[in-house]
Parts: sequence; structure tokens; C-alpha cells
Amino acid sequence: MDFRIEKDTMGEVHVPVDAYYGAQTQRSIENFKIAQDINRMPKEIIRAFAYLKKAAALTNVDAGVLSKEKSDLIGRVCDEILDGKLDKEFPLVVWQTGSGTQSNMNVNEVVAYRAHVINGGKLTDKDKVIHPNDDVNKSQSSNDTFPTAMHIAAYKMLVEVTIPGITKLRNTLAEKAKQYMHVVKIGRTHFMDATPLTVGQELSGYVSQLDHGLRAIQHTLDHLSELALGGTAVGTGINTPKGYAANVAKQIAALTGLPFRTADNKFEALAAHDAIVETHGALKTVAVSLMKIANDIRMLSSGPRAGIGEFFIPDNEPGSSIMPGKVNPTQCEALTMIAAQVLGNDVTINIGGATGHFELNVFKPVMIYNFLHSARLIGEGCVSFNDKCAVGLAPIEANIKKHVDNSLMLVTALNTKIGYYKAAEIAQKAHKEGTTLKEMAVKLGYVTPEEFDQVVDPKTMVGEI
Amino acid sequence: MDFRIEKDTMGEVHVPVDAYYGAQTQRSIENFKIAQDINRMPKEIIRAFAYLKKAAALTNVDAGVLSKEKSDLIGRVCDEILDGKLDKEFPLVVWQTGSGTQSNMNVNEVVAYRAHVINGGKLTDKDKVIHPNDDVNKSQSSNDTFPTAMHIAAYKMLVEVTIPGITKLRNTLAEKAKQYMHVVKIGRTHFMDATPLTVGQELSGYVSQLDHGLRAIQHTLDHLSELALGGTAVGTGINTPKGYAANVAKQIAALTGLPFRTADNKFEALAAHDAIVETHGALKTVAVSLMKIANDIRMLSSGPRAGIGEFFIPDNEPGSSIMPGKVNPTQCEALTMIAAQVLGNDVTINIGGATGHFELNVFKPVMIYNFLHSARLIGEGCVSFNDKCAVGLAPIEANIKKHVDNSLMLVTALNTKIGYYKAAEIAQKAHKEGTTLKEMAVKLGYVTPEEFDQVVDPKTMVGEI
Amino acid sequence: MDFRIEKDTMGEVHVPVDAYYGAQTQRSIENFKIAQDINRMPKEIIRAFAYLKKAAALTNVDAGVLSKEKSDLIGRVCDEILDGKLDKEFPLVVWQTGSGTQSNMNVNEVVAYRAHVINGGKLTDKDKVIHPNDDVNKSQSSNDTFPTAMHIAAYKMLVEVTIPGITKLRNTLAEKAKQYMHVVKIGRTHFMDATPLTVGQELSGYVSQLDHGLRAIQHTLDHLSELALGGTAVGTGINTPKGYAANVAKQIAALTGLPFRTADNKFEALAAHDAIVETHGALKTVAVSLMKIANDIRMLSSGPRAGIGEFFIPDNEPGSSIMPGKVNPTQCEALTMIAAQVLGNDVTINIGGATGHFELNVFKPVMIYNFLHSARLIGEGCVSFNDKCAVGLAPIEANIKKHVDNSLMLVTALNTKIGYYKAAEIAQKAHKEGTTLKEMAVKLGYVTPEEFDQVVDPKTMVGEI
Amino acid sequence: MDFRIEKDTMGEVHVPVDAYYGAQTQRSIENFKIAQDINRMPKEIIRAFAYLKKAAALTNVDAGVLSKEKSDLIGRVCDEILDGKLDKEFPLVVWQTGSGTQSNMNVNEVVAYRAHVINGGKLTDKDKVIHPNDDVNKSQSSNDTFPTAMHIAAYKMLVEVTIPGITKLRNTLAEKAKQYMHVVKIGRTHFMDATPLTVGQELSGYVSQLDHGLRAIQHTLDHLSELALGGTAVGTGINTPKGYAANVAKQIAALTGLPFRTADNKFEALAAHDAIVETHGALKTVAVSLMKIANDIRMLSSGPRAGIGEFFIPDNEPGSSIMPGKVNPTQCEALTMIAAQVLGNDVTINIGGATGHFELNVFKPVMIYNFLHSARLIGEGCVSFNDKCAVGLAPIEANIKKHVDNSLMLVTALNTKIGYYKAAEIAQKAHKEGTTLKEMAVKLGYVTPEEFDQVVDPKTMVGEI
Repeated sequence: MDFRIEKDTMGEVHVPVDAYYGAQTQRSIENFKIAQDINRMPKEIIRAFAYLKKAAALTNVDAGVLSKEKSDLIGRVCDEILDGKLDKEFPLVVWQTGSGTQSNMNVNEVVAYRAHVINGGKLTDKDKVIHPNDDVNKSQSSNDTFPTAMHIAAYKMLVEVTIPGITKLRNTLAEKAKQYMHVVKIGRTHFMDATPLTVGQELSGYVSQLDHGLRAIQHTLDHLSELALGGTAVGTGINTPKGYAANVAKQIAALTGLPFRTADNKFEALAAHDAIVETHGALKTVAVSLMKIANDIRMLSSGPRAGIGEFFIPDNEPGSSIMPGKVNPTQCEALTMIAAQVLGNDVTINIGGATGHFELNVFKPVMIYNFLHSARLIGEGCVSFNDKCAVGLAPIEANIKKHVDNSLMLVTALNTKIGYYKAAEIAQKAHKEGTTLKEMAVKLGYVTPEEFDQVVDPKTMVGEI
Repeated sequence: MDFRIEKDTMGEVHVPVDAYYGAQTQRSIENFKIAQDINRMPKEIIRAFAYLKKAAALTNVDAGVLSKEKSDLIGRVCDEILDGKLDKEFPLVVWQTGSGTQSNMNVNEVVAYRAHVINGGKLTDKDKVIHPNDDVNKSQSSNDTFPTAMHIAAYKMLVEVTIPGITKLRNTLAEKAKQYMHVVKIGRTHFMDATPLTVGQELSGYVSQLDHGLRAIQHTLDHLSELALGGTAVGTGINTPKGYAANVAKQIAALTGLPFRTADNKFEALAAHDAIVETHGALKTVAVSLMKIANDIRMLSSGPRAGIGEFFIPDNEPGSSIMPGKVNPTQCEALTMIAAQVLGNDVTINIGGATGHFELNVFKPVMIYNFLHSARLIGEGCVSFNDKCAVGLAPIEANIKKHVDNSLMLVTALNTKIGYYKAAEIAQKAHKEGTTLKEMAVKLGYVTPEEFDQVVDPKTMVGEI
Repeated sequence: MDFRIEKDTMGEVHVPVDAYYGAQTQRSIENFKIAQDINRMPKEIIRAFAYLKKAAALTNVDAGVLSKEKSDLIGRVCDEILDGKLDKEFPLVVWQTGSGTQSNMNVNEVVAYRAHVINGGKLTDKDKVIHPNDDVNKSQSSNDTFPTAMHIAAYKMLVEVTIPGITKLRNTLAEKAKQYMHVVKIGRTHFMDATPLTVGQELSGYVSQLDHGLRAIQHTLDHLSELALGGTAVGTGINTPKGYAANVAKQIAALTGLPFRTADNKFEALAAHDAIVETHGALKTVAVSLMKIANDIRMLSSGPRAGIGEFFIPDNEPGSSIMPGKVNPTQCEALTMIAAQVLGNDVTINIGGATGHFELNVFKPVMIYNFLHSARLIGEGCVSFNDKCAVGLAPIEANIKKHVDNSLMLVTALNTKIGYYKAAEIAQKAHKEGTTLKEMAVKLGYVTPEEFDQVVDPKTMVGEI
Repeated sequence: MDFRIEKDTMGEVHVPVDAYYGAQTQRSIENFKIAQDINRMPKEIIRAFAYLKKAAALTNVDAGVLSKEKSDLIGRVCDEILDGKLDKEFPLVVWQTGSGTQSNMNVNEVVAYRAHVINGGKLTDKDKVIHPNDDVNKSQSSNDTFPTAMHIAAYKMLVEVTIPGITKLRNTLAEKAKQYMHVVKIGRTHFMDATPLTVGQELSGYVSQLDHGLRAIQHTLDHLSELALGGTAVGTGINTPKGYAANVAKQIAALTGLPFRTADNKFEALAAHDAIVETHGALKTVAVSLMKIANDIRMLSSGPRAGIGEFFIPDNEPGSSIMPGKVNPTQCEALTMIAAQVLGNDVTINIGGATGHFELNVFKPVMIYNFLHSARLIGEGCVSFNDKCAVGLAPIEANIKKHVDNSLMLVTALNTKIGYYKAAEIAQKAHKEGTTLKEMAVKLGYVTPEEFDQVVDPKTMVGEI
């Protein structure tokens, strides 16, 4: 590879001749040879930086500390980043300095040098029209830009991927719940036969879980809408023009179309990432819901002949490389694996959040990496599960009817007539002798056949629908 | 020990002659010999059951399915439970059936048998005036009572212990922040010297964390205010009178003075405990905040001679059994241990929440045990930390001044005047040669002594206060 | 309550007049009002301290730094502690200083003052025959005694409770595996019907898990056998006589009958508790195994009529307060709740272990509290599960046979004869048309009825047994 | 893109015309649109499959069920995979079926079709010389191949990356410990000044942690060396030739040069992944150690002027985009972020491991994805930390001396002479009055100046070295 020489405050560095990045990016590549092929700083962070750098430039112009020309150049490169045109210029990994300084400098360098080229210069020019620190990073510090990028990227992922994905699945399940609201099936508690409910009622529980989960996420968005920008090095806003913090947040809100505002307290905003911890707390709640839902669905569709077999789900692929004709609940498996991942990510985020010190939390990259991972997995996982499984879900009514007809727990309906103890006796003896409840109830003389039929009717045992 | 014979649907059981509990409680004692001396079902759950059983009785009277006399007797025993008079009658442990059925039956038995005695009967009477299942448990199932007790106990703990505890600490820190708002100190990022801020600013970050944490808890209370009661066995409300669910929730709200209401969806309320998972997500966020705050305070008070030594905290006890005169940040240690406990409890709760199946989650006891543990530890831990540490916290101004005076990071103020690169050169050379920034800045010819003093003034570097 | 005055290096303290403990214990009670009724320092730690203090006294006599008389007195009190006679003298909680200093001092005080009384003195005597620091704590520091007590308590719990409990369950399952080795049943993968295996083979997998788990625990015991004692304040062994560390470890080994030895490196032994982390890593592996095993067993015994119903497990108690005659897999539920607890405890222990600083880890109490909790829960949980569930486990052969007979996955046996694709066609068409495999195989002309019967024989599909 | 038509047992699929993979891989791409750009099945798994498929082919030849010609073709493609020549043919992600069936089929397809092309055929030929299921997958099932690939990939990563990485860091620290064994420094417990030790002693504690960690990993390798292959669908070994399991394990051992052997119990090997859970338990122990070590080093190198400043670590890059001249402990930050990641991954692995059911665990991909991530991060993180930080670590002796000279905790040496209480009085008064210990000791009349100097000598307080 051909190289050019770049300089920073520590000296000279060899940089690939065509790279738009400079010395500090190159140092990071060399200093952190850790999982470089699999753990790049998420592209959502890079794009959040593009919004942020453009907004900062515009605010700096308004404050009279940056020229309109420089701001325009900076803005043009930011737009290129947002269009995905410069993706390969951001090679750094998550495992770098915990403040994300090197990724901030990576962006500063790429914006400055690409701007210089757009402006007609060459990468090898010693002096460039835009300076990474003095222009692109003006009125900023890594310490306030990186957490700002974290919130932008997190918020966008939530509203663009996570929430729509969950909502899509929720709506499908709600539709199915309505459709099958009157299909009576046996309930199961402790994995054991219980009193009946309807398929629609069962599904409505899942819908309620997701509704609550969506609300839980929504509740955390306010904290996440607070931006650190303007706090600079330690939260005091050193080297920022008057009004900068509030103004730059407005610019970011305008550019992203999202309700960002400047953080009430910049010291928290740099030193802690409780907003990330809190919102991920909502995401892990959704993961818990999804684990429950997907587990139920795969167990209810188990079989086809030696399982429960009450739900049909679509056959998407051959299920086994050795057992011919086998079909498996693979979407359930992907979704439950995602839930497990999110629950682990939560712990990483907690440890990162708890281990900030003094004026700066230096677990920023690992926290946002895990957050974005979870938020995306949930969103895309729900869509996949929805499209390839939930939309095709249907009750297998023959099996459902057989289970209801055989159930011993219908005896519960007799409690109010003959008391719990006699009802128990009926069920236990019917179980032991392998008879139906009705036969045993009559045999024991507790009810007549007519009374039994009147009281023990699965349809009337499912409550008002 | 002397015994009497009790019976349930499975047969006879020997019960201690004076015990108010009966056969099913005794079976559980014998069937679950697991950590019986240390893991009793939390007393808060037993008391929540007392509210619930009383409320159910009153609602049953209104619905015409229970006599006023029986309801009064039930209510009298519930009041005794709430007064702590029957604590020893609840010997069961967390490690029992996952629906908490045995604790529900323990309460049913104690209420019935104690009522019988209050009514003038004897424990050895074969027939008792109140029946555990048919009267005390009327219109109920373990499956809806236990989750109802979970929400009552959790909500009460939060508003009585957790939130007041956090608030107390928050208020002390806010007062300290105000008091020391103008004490300029060196900032630290990456554990390294950074630009200055004030002690008050630093503390205000902690206040902001706790304010956000309190808000996070508040946001989750609505979900927690939903009660499962009325869902009975599987959520359909089998064996409940008309209007029961809404009415019993109103009774519970009236008895507890808390805004409980019947759950929108009873199927979720039995089969999942996402409300517990969600609220504990807020608690773990607070734990993360407390870990950060307590860590900072112990590091800032480190020393007395070979540490940072910027904060004084009270000496509460001799710190060492071997090193005479040593004093340690013991309240910080207790609080950080609590944070570690809460972060572990969170995982237990997540796993429990994710592993419910079909119509019932059977990790109820372990979930609420961990929840109440966390909520109480945070509340009482904050009070202890507040009373024995935070209220006595004070800056050690001599050390603070020394650190500010020596700092090299004041050079940052020169960025806007001479640019980042020249400022860096000053700092690096001053560090290398062991001089002050001013000496080096003048020596390098970048500013005059007068310019330096004008620009580099720690007091003006902390922003508007 | 009546009080007497006690003094420590910080001044006077009021102590209950009859308490054997003194000033520092009392200070801790007052300074840490956190969960005092539920989170006492585990009694196993107090008893470990008794071994340790006795061993230290004996070693000090040998080294000529303590009189035989004092050592004898100390030893007598330690024996009383081991006999459980002084349990109420140890009121401190887990949430204290992170070094456990206060519990060390609690022991020092109780040993000294009780010794004084044994020796004929009175608690109100100003001078006592034994001094808590200068005699009982001689050649020790909290910093090396508490971690020593941690290892003693942990090791003892493992060999006395955990390992025997797991082993008991393992042996029962091994016996059942042997007993049912030839009962052919349908296999299930992805919850879907698969090729057959025998009940014994299935159970043998659980046995193998527990065997590996026991081996995993055994592997970690060597690290746990290292004792910190002799390191004193920071690991250097200041204020210890020559040879003390090795000798006191030998005394402890002799007193406990366990293979303890002095730690290779005392700096690690005080500053980190990786041995606790490592061993708990083995315990969480066992928890993972138990979750799997208990889940399988409850699902395989699900029903009785609308579940899988292949296993019978004992009915230990009425299962429902509303559904008469219901029996539930309650032992499985207790065991899976225990597994969830252990997996959460693991995270607490990890965080505690990771957050030690410099020469001392100050998460000692929370680490050992969670460790002992897990170790005990696993041990006692396995015994309960064994005695009340596993010993009564039996296949329900009628259901098992029905599932095998109906299975479509027996088609796999045809792969080697007619290839995967044709076999798949048979299974898919049989499933669609609701016929048996044999009918479809013959109908499609791929095999004759005789060939089918020869190749597709469940008994020959389970491998060599 | 141009397509060709491929078929599987479910019908036709459009596949990119040049892709070596076939219908089932394509289905998975379309069915699992989840994080496809960032979560590919780890390449280590693909390569492990190459060893496995080659070994299976060789074993099948020996067993007389596959021709030498086919085996040679299969082997040639496997070699290409191992050489990294076919990386782009494996596009599937972690979030697929939980058995990894689709990745097994991906390998089967690529091997078969590429073999056909090597043999002179064309991808569009309807019949190919090698069949994915009947040849490449012969005597195998996804259910035994995927766990086998998990163990191969995990073991290789440990011995090639993880263990060497930890060892490299361990050796550097051991060398530093030796080099600085006589540099006396102040000890710190509870972040507070304590008795002295040497820099070498302090570092030796880290070495001991890593030694124990390496041993912990080694202990788990035996379980990990067990291979599932030969268990096929459910562990019974259906459709395998006699002796296959043992023979194929020998082939894999020969090909990889690692001590693999056939699993003692195939039912465990498919249904549980406790070996992965157990070994990751050792990895998390190492993560805990690394967190401690890296935290210590960054705090000991804090400053340069307002911190502890006892350790010099290399300046690798400019530390701040706003504070000129700032250098940060960035390698410590990367390593502690890695530790946080590993501790989260551990929870994901636990949940995956605990949630297997019946004859198959279907969290295989997420478990191995997290395992390999941790193992690699630890290995590469240790190398990075070693090369860019530890090798340059050096004590800053001036600061170290200053801290020792000022310390009050040297008073501990007086305990054995004047008792703990008088020693405490000296320290407390010296602290209060800001004097030296010696001045106060003499002033209080407890020792003469000569006695003080004789007893209180830091060099003699660090024990035998």
C-alpha cells in the first residue's frame, strides 16, 4: 500500500495515500488490533456524528466563530457520510479509548480532509482549508460529542427500527387475537391442564405484553432526548460561544426531525449514561416478553404427533439435515436467541454505566455498541418473526377440541355448586380410573347428568369476551 | 412438639398443635427443606395478602356471595396480620411452587383457623366457621392472588422505602451542590487531570442522576398499579361474580391508599410479570447511578496523604483491626455492594420473567423476593449513606486548591487564542520539564504573561453557574 | 434495654448490658441499618472465623507470641461458637464495610469478652484478660482473616452440602437411567418429534451433565483451598511471626479436616477473590444443568390429558387453590427458581470480584453472601428435588408407546436405503394425509411392506445400549 | 443479479448464479433478515466445519459407506475453506434456527457444489457428482455436527488466541514484578493509605491472578475436548456405521492436532452445552481479573499532577480533541470495556445453556457466537494491552517515595511494641495536627526517636521478598 505522511501533536504517522482519515485514526488502527474485522464502531454512530458535526458548524456560524464557507464545506461532507458514501473511511473498532475520542477524531479528520479535496485541494497538501480540531471540532470535545452521537443513534434506531418492528408484530397478534377470540381451548398452568380460555384470549396476553413494552420504551425517550453537546471537556462548556448548547440541540432536532433538546445537566451527560441504561432496561423488558411469547408459540405448535399441536405455524425451510420432512419453529428459535443476547447485553451496559468515574464515563463505545445491537435485533427480529411466523399462525382446531373434551380441570366449574373438596374428589378419581369427569361426578352422586352439562360448559367458563 | 391432625384433599397431615396454619402449609414445610432459616417468603408479601384477602371478602359481600359475618371475621384476622401479630404463622420459604400457591394457602389457612378461634372455636374442631378455600379464597385463585400481592408489596415498598430513601440522599446532595457551587476544583476525565469545574457542579451531576432515576421509577408505577385479581385460574375470571375484578381493585386501593386498578388484560397479569421486570429495570438504573456516585466519593476522599483527598467524609468507626487510626469509606462500600446485589437480582428477575409458560408464570416467588430485596436495599442503603456519609461530606479546600494550581489542563483555555496544536505543545513541554504552564507558554513565546493570566483563569473556565 | 459502656479507639459506645460484643460491633449496628432482619452475615462465616481464630491462637502459641492460657481461653470460646451457642452475638449484616472488618471485630470482641467471663470476669470489668485486637486478632488483619473465612465457609459448604446434594440426585437419575434403559420413546428436537431413543438414554444425558458439573466444581477446589491468612494488612505479612502463614494454614486444615494450604500469593488473596468467582462459575454451570433437567421433567410430565404425559412424578400437595384435583411439578419449579437465583448471584459475584482496587477487594461480604446462598440452594434444592420428585419418577408407558407408534420421524431409518429426498416425501405426504408412514411408503412404491418393517423398527433405531 | 434455480425437499429457490451454495442457504438468507451485515456466523465455525466434513468423509471411506473419489473431492473443498478461499459463500447469520442446521446445510451445499465444479461440472447441472445430504452430510446430523464445530472452534480459539494472549501479558507483568521487587511503595486498602509493599509485590498479585485464570481455563479443556459427532439426530447415532463416533473424533484430532475425543455421552452433547458454559465461566473469571488489573493500572497512573501518579504508562495517542497535551490510559479502557462485554456475554451463554429442551439445545449459534467473541476479545485485548501498555509500564519513583514518606499507616509497625490503641492515638493525632508520625510518637512519649526509626522502617515492613 502507498502511504502519505500525516502529523498530529505527537508526531508523524504513515497513512494510506487515499484515505481521507489522518494521523489519529491511523494511530488507533495500529494501537487497537482487536477484533478489527467484526467489531467496527457501528455505522449508526458515524452517521449520528455527521448530523452533529453539521449542526455544530451551523451553530458556530450563527455564533460568529466559523465562516459560512467552512460550514458549507463541513455540511457537504456530512451529507456524504449520511448518504453512506464514505463508509470505508471509518475503520475504527469499539475497543478503543472509552471516551470514543478516536472515533470523534476519525470523523473530524475525514470531514476536514474530504472537505479540502471537495474544495479542490489534495490530500498531500501540508495545509488544509479545514482543520480537524480547530474547525470541525470547534466548540466541541469528544466528551460531549460522543455521548451526543450515542443519543442520536439510539433514538433513531428506536423510532426507525425497534418500535416499528415491535408494533408490526403486536398488530398481527392483535388481529389474530380478534380472529380467534371464540375458539375455546384448554388453559395450561404449571404445564398442567387447567380451566379453558380462548385462543384469542391467550394471544391477547401477548398483545398486552407488547403494548406495555412499547409504553415502557416510550417512557424512557425523554431522558434519551437530552443531548450532552455544549458540555465540552467536563460539562462546564469551556470554549463554547454563548447559547451554544441550546442552539446546537435545536439544529440537531431540525436536521433529524426528532425532539432532541440540550441536557438539563451536562455533568451527568458526560459522566454517566443512565439514559442508555434506563432505555435498555425497557428493551430487556421487551426481550423478556418476546422470550415468553416465542416459547409459548413453539410449544403450542409442537408435534406434529407427539406434542401439543394446537397451533399451526408456517414451514419455511427443511428442518433437518438427517430427519426427512421435519419442520421446526425456527423463527421462534431466532427470536429467543435474540432475547438471550439482549439480556446479556443488558449486563454489559449496566457494568459500563456503573463504572464511570469523576467527570467522564469511559465505557461509551461498549455501551452504545450493545445498545444498538439490542435495539436492532429486537426490531428486525420482530419483523422476521412477524412475516415468517406470526402472520401464518392458526389454531389447529381438531387438536384443540380434543384437549378440551378430555380435560379434568373443567371440574372447577363445580366449585361454586358442590365445593372445592368434592370437586377435587371427582377429578382425582376420574384421573385414576381414566373416566370422564361427568361419569365420575354422576357415579359419586354429587350431580345429575343434566346438572353437570349445565354447569360444566367450556364455552361459559371463559368469561365475558 | 405436640400435633393435631389436619386434612386436605390429599389426606391427613400432622400440624403443630398451636399453629394457626393447616395441612397445606405443613406439607410445604416438609416438601421444601431449602434454606428455611434464611429465605422465608418476605413479610411484605404476607401483609399484601392481608390487604387482598380483606378486600376480597368485602367485595364478595357486596356481590352477595359471602356473609357479612364471615367477611368481618376475615377482616379481623387480616388486621392482625397487618399489625404483625401473626408473623410466626407464615413459615414457608421462597423455594416452593412457582405460583406461590402454598403461601396463598398458608394465608387462607391462617385466616380461616384464626377466625374460627376469634369466633370462639378451637383449632381441633373438625368443622370450622370459615373455610380456607371456600370462604377466604372465594372468587380467587393463587394464580391471581399471588401476582396481586406481588404488585401491592412492590408498590408499597417503592413508595414507602425506595423513593423516600433516594429522595433523601438526592436532597442532601442538592444542598451540598448549592453550598459548594463556587469551589473551583480540577476536573478529571479518564482518571487524568482535565479542565476545572466546581465542587457544586460535580455534585449536581449526581443530583441529576438521581432525579432521572426517580423519574424512571415513577414512569413504571402505572404498569405496577395493575392488579391481576379477578383473573382467577387462567385469566378468564372463572368463579368470580359480576364486576368483581374492578370492584376488588377499588377495595384494595381504598385499603392501601394507593392508586391500584384492575389490570387491562388478566392473561398477561398471570402469565407474565413484565411490570416487575420493567420496574426493576428502573431500580437497576438507580443502582448504576449509586455505584457511580459512591465510587466517586470514595475516590475523591481517598488518602489521607497518598490519595486524592479532595473530600472529607465522616469517620464512623475504626477502619482497621491492624492499622491503627485508619478510617475507611465504609458507607460507600455498603452502597456499592448493594448496587452489585441489585444488578445480580436484575438478572434473576429477567430469567424468571422470561421463563413463564402458557397461562402462568411460575417464577413468582423468586421474582418478588429479588424485587423486594433490591427495592429495600436501595431505599435503606440511601438513607444509611445519606445519614452517615453524605450529610457530613465537605470539600478539603487546601488540597483542592493545590490540584487546581498545578494543573496542566488549564491550557485548554488557550485553544481559542493560539489553537489546539500550540496549546498542546505548551502542556507537553511543561509536563516534561516540570514547570508551570505559564512559564512554558511565555518561554515558547506564544503569549505574554499578562495575556496568560487573562485567558487562563480557572474561575472563568467553569462556565456560567 | 440496659446498657454498659464500651470503648474503642474512637470513644465510648453504649452496648446492651448482656451482649458479649463490644464497641465496634455496636457502631456497626448503628451505622448500617440496612435489611437487618433479613441479611445477617451468614452463620457459616461466623463459624469459619471460629476455626480461624482458634488456629491463629494455637499458631501464635507455637511462635511464642501468645500464652498457652490465652490460647486455651480463645479456643474454648471458638468451640462454643462452633456449637452454635453464641449465634445471637453476631448481629451484623452483609451491608457493612467491604472488607468485613466489622464482622472480624465482632468475632474478636465476642471471643475476648466471653473468654473473660469464662475466666471468671465480668463484662463490665474495665480491663479484660483477653484483648480483642492484641490477643484474638494477633498476627491477623481483617484483610486476611475475612478472605480466609470466605474460603473456609465456601469449601465446607461445597463438600458438606453442595456436592453431596448434587451427587444424591445424580445417583438417583443414574439408577433410573439403568432401570428404564430399554423403554423406547420418541425423541424431540426443536420441540418437534424426532427419531426415537430410550427413557434411560434420555436420563443418562442428565447424569452426564451432573457428572461434568461435579467435576467442574472439583477442578476449582484447589484455588479455593488457598488461604490468605498471614498476609495481614496488605499481603506482606506485617506483624506476623516467622513461618506463621504456612503454620496457621496447617492448623486450619487440621481443625477442619480439609486440605487447606497457605496461598501462593497473598497479594492476590487480599486484593482479588477470583477463586470465589471461578468456583461460582462452576456452580452456575450446575445451575444451567439443573434448569435444563427440571424443565425437561416438568414438560415430560405435563398433562395429564392435554400435555406430553410421558413421565409420572409424585403428587406431593394439592396443586391449586381453585382447580380441584390439580397436581403440579412443584419441585421442578423450586429447582428452576433456584437456578435463576444462582445465575443472578453469579453476576453480583462477578461485579464484586471485578471491582476490587489496589491491595484490597472491598466487596467481600456481598461476594461470600451470594456464594454461600448459591452453594446451599443448589445442595438443598437437589436433595429436595431428589427426595420428593426424582425418586418417584417413572415412565408412563402407554403414552410413550402411543407417541412412538404415531411418529413420522421413524422415516429417518429409510435414508440409508432410499435417500433423504424420497424419505422426506414420504413423511410430508403422510403428515398431510394423516396416514402412517408405512402406508405412504408403500403407496409411493419406495419400499415393500416387508422392507419397511425390517428397516423401520424403533428398537433398532436407538443404537447400541 | 442473475439467478439459477435450485431445489430442496420443499421446492424451487432462486440462487445467485455464481454462488456455490444452494436452496437451503438461500432460504435462510430470505427468512432471517436480521443484522445480516454485522452478525455473520463466525468464520471460525465455518472452518471448524471444514475439519469436520473432511474427517467425516475420511471416516466414511474407512467404514465403506463413501467412495474414495467422493471423499477426496470433499476434502479438497474443505481445504479451500480452511484456506479462506470460499469465505463469501457463507452469508448466513447467527439468528437462524437454533440448531445451526442452516449453517450445516450451507457447508454441505458449498462443499457439494464446489466439488462438482472442481470435478469439471457446472453449477447449473441438474445432477451433481456429490450430494449435500447423502454424501457431505453422510453419517451426520446438524444436531451433532454443529456442537462438534462449536467445540472445535472454541478449543482452537482458546489455544491459538486466548491462552497465548493472556500468557503474553502474564509474562510481561512477571518480568516487571521481578524488576521492581524492591521499590517500596505505599499500600492502599479501601482507597486509603495502608502499610507499604513493593511495586513488584503489587504486580505479583496480578501475575498470580492470571496464572490462576490460565489454570482455570486449562481445567475446562477436557470437557471441551468431547465431540458430539456420531450422535446424529438425537444422540443414538442412528444412520452411522459401526465405530463411527470414536473414529471420526480421531480423524478430527489428527487434522487439528488437538486432543479431541468422542463424547462419553452423546445425549448430553446434543441437548446441553455445559462445556461451553463451564469454559466461559473460566473466561469470565479472567475478565474479572483483567478488570481489576486494568483499573489498578489506570488509577496508579492517574494524574499527572492531581492524581496518584505512581506508574508511568506509554503515551500512544493524543488523548483529547479539546484538551491539548492530554494523554489517557486508553489501553486500560479498551481492556475494561472488553471485560464488561465478556461479563455480559456470560449471561447470554448461561441463558442459552439453560434453555435447551429434550434432546436438543437450540441456542447453539448464539452461545458459540458469544463464546468466540469473548475468547477472541480476551486474547487480542491482552496482546494489545501488553504491547501498548504493560511493556512500557514503569514506576515513577519520586512520587512513590513522597507517598511512602508521608504515610500515617507506617504506625502499624508499632502495634507489636506499644499495642494497637496507643498506635491509633499517634496516627489520629498526627493526622489532625498535620505532623509526621515520628513527631507525634515522641511527643506522646510512647517511643524515643531512636526506637521509632528502628521499628518504623518501610523497607522492613514489606516482609521477606
